[in-house]
This record gives sequence, structure tokens and C-alpha cells, in this order.
Amino acid sequence: MTTLEKLRERMAELADLAALEMLADWDQLVMMPSEGAPGRAHQLGALARLAHERAVGEEIGEWLAELEGEDLEEPNGDIVRLARRDWERARRVPAELAAELSRAHAEGQESWQRARASDDFAAFAPALRRNVELARTYAQCLTEEGASPYEELLNDYDFGLGTDELRRLFGELAVALPPLVAEARVRSPRRELAVPVAAQQTAVAATLRRIGVEPGSWRVDVSAHPFTTWLGRRDTRLTTRYSDGDVESLLSSLHEYGHALYERQVDPALERTNVGFGTSMSIHESQSKLWENHVARSPAFAEVLAGELGAAGFPIGAAELHATLVGVEPTLIRVSADPLTYPLHIILRFELELALIDGELAVEDLPAAWGDGMRRLLGLEVPSDALGCLQDIHWAAGSFGYFPSYALGCLIAAQLWETIETELGSREEHLRRGEVGPIQLWLAERVHRHGRRLDTRPLVEQATGRGLEVEPFLRYAGSLA
Amino acid sequence: MTTLEKLRERMAELADLAALEMLADWDQLVMMPSEGAPGRAHQLGALARLAHERAVGEEIGEWLAELEGEDLEEPNGDIVRLARRDWERARRVPAELAAELSRAHAEGQESWQRARASDDFAAFAPALRRNVELARTYAQCLTEEGASPYEELLNDYDFGLGTDELRRLFGELAVALPPLVAEARVRSPRRELAVPVAAQQTAVAATLRRIGVEPGSWRVDVSAHPFTTWLGRRDTRLTTRYSDGDVESLLSSLHEYGHALYERQVDPALERTNVGFGTSMSIHESQSKLWENHVARSPAFAEVLAGELGAAGFPIGAAELHATLVGVEPTLIRVSADPLTYPLHIILRFELELALIDGELAVEDLPAAWGDGMRRLLGLEVPSDALGCLQDIHWAAGSFGYFPSYALGCLIAAQLWETIETELGSREEHLRRGEVGPIQLWLAERVHRHGRRLDTRPLVEQATGRGLEVEPFLRYAGSLA
Repeated sequence: MTTLEKLRERMAELADLAALEMLADWDQLVMMPSEGAPGRAHQLGALARLAHERAVGEEIGEWLAELEGEDLEEPNGDIVRLARRDWERARRVPAELAAELSRAHAEGQESWQRARASDDFAAFAPALRRNVELARTYAQCLTEEGASPYEELLNDYDFGLGTDELRRLFGELAVALPPLVAEARVRSPRRELAVPVAAQQTAVAATLRRIGVEPGSWRVDVSAHPFTTWLGRRDTRLTTRYSDGDVESLLSSLHEYGHALYERQVDPALERTNVGFGTSMSIHESQSKLWENHVARSPAFAEVLAGELGAAGFPIGAAELHATLVGVEPTLIRVSADPLTYPLHIILRFELELALIDGELAVEDLPAAWGDGMRRLLGLEVPSDALGCLQDIHWAAGSFGYFPSYALGCLIAAQLWETIETELGSREEHLRRGEVGPIQLWLAERVHRHGRRLDTRPLVEQATGRGLEVEPFLRYAGSLA
Repeated sequence: MTTLEKLRERMAELADLAALEMLADWDQLVMMPSEGAPGRAHQLGALARLAHERAVGEEIGEWLAELEGEDLEEPNGDIVRLARRDWERARRVPAELAAELSRAHAEGQESWQRARASDDFAAFAPALRRNVELARTYAQCLTEEGASPYEELLNDYDFGLGTDELRRLFGELAVALPPLVAEARVRSPRRELAVPVAAQQTAVAATLRRIGVEPGSWRVDVSAHPFTTWLGRRDTRLTTRYSDGDVESLLSSLHEYGHALYERQVDPALERTNVGFGTSMSIHESQSKLWENHVARSPAFAEVLAGELGAAGFPIGAAELHATLVGVEPTLIRVSADPLTYPLHIILRFELELALIDGELAVEDLPAAWGDGMRRLLGLEVPSDALGCLQDIHWAAGSFGYFPSYALGCLIAAQLWETIETELGSREEHLRRGEVGPIQLWLAERVHRHGRRLDTRPLVEQATGRGLEVEPFLRYAGSLA
């Protein structure tokens, strides 16, 4: 084997191990009997330890040193460049710490599920404390002298973005959004709409089928917190959840579809390489938010959704459904927040996780700090931790630095959508008929196919011709207000 | 860490990797979208290659050499003894061959599923030929000068049993069974009983719940071929299948329950060691056959099953149900065969796979040889390969040498059941009330808790006070005839 072949074989192996880890995670959240958790934690620990060992081998450094002198055809140049980046970062983390992180995250999720069900933050606090301490230990392995541990955690999700840039973007949003929220609460108020679960399930299945979800290469399941898993380009698994009291599933299934489509449209030539994945969490979230905010929440696509609900035995007008999907009202739960207050939920989490990691906030003080933040940013009192700091799985799974990508996703989605409508023309007539083919193709060409070739900023610049901006999202927000 | 701790940590890691492999297999057969197959084959290949590497390391030999001189407390003595056996066998198999086997078996299963659905043996032949050749290559790695490759394959499933012993036992059966079949066909003829799938599902769920299957640590799913997976003592997954035309699910779910209970009742002190699993396929099959033949097919337990069918909206008398469950008639399909003709199906497969591995039968001649064998042993014409040599998954998954355990399981189950009734008294009154606690306890104590501490023969001798015999099964067969 040539040196290049050796490197590519190792990258393929790491991609296979990553898929197995995703399978074990998916199974734990969707299929596993609850008492399987301790065993699963051991299994994930073993997998993480082995994957880490294979990712940090000295031989990779030798291969890279040899290949970096060569003139390589694409995608091999990018494979070598990203292998260097990943190898340098991974080898700073001891194998035992990697395994401990994996075990703690599996156990943290179990603890969180029980604590959330019984609204008992104290029962979750030890697991969260362990996760915070481990995240700090992990970040310290990566941090250069003087850099902030939080910024290193961010780099795992969005390479090249910094805490200061987030402060700037989120600062602009925090100033400009509240007046738009105040207007929208009046003009486009929140409405209740209770749709029976069975009708939602039928409508979701039919809508997803219209846009390409078929059983030969997709699964759609239910989980406590919707998420998407890709175990290869042709094994995509999205989850959603259903409640009789709302229509959240219509939005969350389109949201998860956006994540799924991204991974499915990466250039097949990059499959089982270290370049063949979505490039960052914020670009990933821009894909989910594009389908959630700009497709599912459009007046035109509401006609499709209303039609499917009608066919499922729940007749409703498109205008009424649309008004429900875009109604604005500050609420307690992030995942069911309206599109305007949503980024304010993220700004809260960004502030709190930054403080947790920097040691400025103790875990036991989190519920109180959460309450203060919700009061300040959204004007709400938090009646219980289940509706407060226990609502999200992320910290239970050790994901600190992940939340900002949700707000960045809103911004980038709006910026991409403006570019799509500039280049392809208004999507209104197409969406009314449920035609999304041209959108899928545009995204494949401008965003998806690149995989990790371009990081967040260069990708946004390449796709839209501009840097990261808040204005397109504010214009979208203004259109709702 | 002490040397013993190092060895035990490695054994725990191998147990974790084995659980992940079982998860990936289970998912492929129960959950995975069909187009995920090529990706899954890569993932299983990577896992097998890594597990093999960790199982054959030189360091294990050094640890063992050191520990074999020490006086170790149990279970450490058995851990060292079995680690030596497994290490010696595993290191003879090159890592690349192990990975190739894993890939071929995943792809073989996919090919088989398609071929079986379209009754197209030719479409499956290339995958089967590859599996036969790889099995031969694999066996040749293990074979001492002059030993038969088939015997080495057998050793993977039933260490210490030989081809000659199988010929003797199966020879006795092949002589003694046909007269009993002829009698039973008259006295206890096959009856058709069509129970709607929904009633079967309800009755199966209720029956399993009565004997300890609860959702906290079990899953019950549907698959093309019923099987059982254990991902830890508290994550047990059994599958069954339902058809409107029969009541097979009542038997197959109890059959799979027997496998599951075995693994769940291994001594917890052996968990995540190399001793903490069922000791052999024939003992495993004795556990499933004990629940299938001696519990589910007893006149007493038929009262429980009939009661559950009645509660599920399908009223039926216990005597009629029992007569259906034990009716004897030569048929084409192994898994739905009556308890008397069942071993004849196995003898056919034993003969054919022995001939395939020894090179005396070419893959393309398999359908004809199958037809000849069915004519000779069961007096039946085989109308299609889907009802013939495509009916079982085993060869598609590369499992040669596995089938004999099914017939051995029938023999050992009968031998254990006679011992249970001798020691505990007739089970009739208990089974009538669905009380299986004393049986579960007896099995835990005499069979399950030992894990791999005892191989097949010493385990049977310890549990029953006698060697492997055909007479108890023939007495059971006589009771039906």
C-alpha cells in the first residue's frame, strides 16, 4: 500500500467507528431498554477508547509528514489537511480521558432522563458537575497558553469561530430582536392548535415522503428529544416527537430533515473519508433551520401541510395553520419556541455554559441563574426545572459549546434563503405545490457536496458572496412582525 | 495494574466489542433500512478487525504465561484457562481474514434476503460460494495435521464435540425416529389452526410477561428469522414472527425466551469476562428447546396459552391448541417442523454442510442435493428453493457447524427435563397455572450460572449425572406418538 492508501484506509476505519458510535447512541435513545444503560456506557467507552487510539497513532504523523510534501489531487489534499488538524487536536487528549468522557456522557443522559421525568434537578446535578469538570479538563488539553477553555469547546463544533465573534453577533441580536418580538406578539400572536397525534403522524409521514423520505434508506422514529443520525449515505434516521396539544412535529420533522439532507448530499467521492461529513454544527443547523423557518413556516408550504392534515382527517385552513406555525409569544421551551424568540433561548444557554466552563457559575446555582436569565431575556418566570434547565439533553451528553450553533444556524439559514430567492426567484409558487427539487439541488451544489472541504466562514462566503451577517435574519423576523 | 487486572480489562473490552457487534447485527436484521447494508458491512468489518487485533496481541500470551503459574481464586482460574484456549485459536486467524469473513457474512445475509424473497437460488449462489470458501480457509488456519476442517468449525460452537460423535448420535436417531414419526402421524396428526396475527401478538406478549419479560430490560421485535440478542444481562432482545396461517409465534417466542433466560442467569460475577456467556450452542439450544418442547408443547401449559388467546379474542380449547402444537407431519420448513421430524431436518443440514466444507458437494448442486435429502429423510418433494435450501439464514451468515447444535439441543433438553421432573416432581400442576419459577431456579443453579466454566459434556454430566444420550428424547417422542 502507498502512504496515501494507508492514510485513507485509516480514515475509512475511523468513519466506520464513528458510524458504530452513532448507532449505539441512536439505539440508546430510541430502542434500548432502560436497564441496558450501564452496559451501554461500557460499550461506548470501549469504542471511544479504541477510536481515539486509532486516531492518534504516531504512524499518522509519519504518513502526514510524507504526504504534505506531495502535490495531491483532490480530495486527497483536503484529506491530508484535515487529517493533520484532527490528529493534532486528538493526540492532545489522553485515551483514558476520552473513554471517561464517553462513559460520563452515556450515564449523564440516563440520569437526565430520570431527573427530567421527576422534575428533580438535584438528582441530575452530580452527573452535570462531572460533565462540566470533564469538559474543562478536556478543553485544557487543547488550549494554548492564555486561550479560553470555552473557545476550544466551540472549535469542536465550529472550527475557526471565536467567543468574541459570538458576543458581537449575539449582542446585535439581543438589541434588535426584542422590539421585533414586541411588535410580532401583537400582529402575529401565538395560537393554540391541538391536533390529534394520529393525524400528525400521518401528515408528517406523507409530507416527508413528498420530499424524498422513503423506507429503503430512511427511518423515522420517536424519541424524547428529536435528533438525526446518519450511519452512511443510505441509512438516515430521523426522530421526532408527538403531543396532542400542539403541531410541533410538523416543524421538528422538517427541521431534522434539513440535517439529514445535508449528510445525504455530500459528494459520494468523499464517503468514508475524514472530509465526507457536514463541516460544522452551525452550517448543519442552518440546514435544519432553512427547512423549518423558510419552508415549513412559509405561507405557501402551509398549503401542503394543511392538505396533508386534511387528508389525515383533520381539516384546517392553510392560513390558520400558517398563523399557528409563526405565532410569536415568549415561552419556556426552546424546541417549541417561535422563530423570533428562539435565538434569545440560545443566548441564555451561551451565557450560562460559558459561565459554567469558566467556573463563574456553580452547578447548584444553575436553576436560579436560569430563572434570572429567562426573566431578563424573555420576561418569563420559570415554574419548574423540567420546564427550565432540565429541558435539553445537550449538557447531559457533555455537549458544551454546541448551543451557539442553533442561533448561528438561524442567521445563516436566512442568509442562504435570501441568496436562493435572489438566484432562483421567489419560491412561493413552487412551495405551494410542494416542489422542493430546485432547493435541494441548489443546496447540494452550494453547501452540501463540499462536506468538510470548507469551514463555516469560507462556506458562507462562497455560497452567499458575503460574510456572516445578522441583517437577513432581522429582515425575516421583520416579515413576521 | 497487576497482570491479572490487565487480562481482565482486556477480556472486558472484548466483551464490550462483542456486544457492539451483536447490536450492529440485531439492528441490521430488525431496524436498518435495506440500503444501509453496504455501509453496515464496512462497519462490521472494522469492528471485527479491531476485536481480532485486541484478541490476539502478544501481550496476552505474556500475561497468560505469568498467570498460569499462580494459584488463582475463582473465577480467575477459569478466566485464564479460557483466555488461553481462545487466544491460541484466535491468533491462528489473520486479521484480514477475520475482517473479510465479517464483510462476507453481512453481504451474504443481504443477498440471501433478496434471493429468498424472489426464490432465486442463483442470485445467492455467489455469496454462498464465497462463504464456503472462506469457512474452509478459516478452518484450515485452525486444523492440526490430519484433522477435518469441519470439526474445527464445530469446535467454534461446541468445544470438545467431534464429527464422529455426531455421526453416532444422529445415526441412532435416524434409525429410531422414523417408526415413531410413522406412528405419530396417525395418532397425533398435524392440524391447521389459523389465528389472526393481532391475537397472536397479544397472547405472546401476555405469556412472555407472565414469565418475566418486562420492558425495563427486554425488547420483543419482529424479524424474518426469529433470533435472540443479549447486549448485557439487562438488555435482552428477542424476535419472533407472525403469520395469520399458523400459531408458530407461540412456540418460537418461548424458544427464544429459553436462549434469553440462559444469558440472563449467568453468575453476575462473570459479567464482562470471557466466562460470562452461554458455554456452547448445543447447551444454548437445549435451553430454547426445553421451553419450546417441554413447556410450550405440554398439555398443561396449553391451558395458559389457550387462556391468553381467549383473552386476546380468539377462544380455543386447551386440548385443541395442544393437539395443534404437537401434531406430527413431515413438512418442508425446519423452524415450523413438529418436534419429532425436527431432528431429521438437522441431520439433512449436517450432511450437506459437511459435504460442502469437505468439497464433496458444489454450491450449484445444493438445491438438487437438498431435494434428494428431503426425499430420503422425510419423504417429501421440494417445490422451490425458498421452501428448500434458501429457508435458513445460517449459511448466508457463514455459520457452518452450527446446525448440529439444534438436534443436540433437543436431546439435551429432554435429558434435562427428565432430571427436573425426577428431582422436583411432575411439573404438570405448576405449568397448568403458568408457574415456572422453580424451573427457572433449577436451570439457573444447574446450567445457567456456570457460564463457560463447564463445556457441553461436563455440564450435561454435572446437571443430569449421565453422559449425552438419545433415550430421553426418544421417550419424549414416544409420549407424543
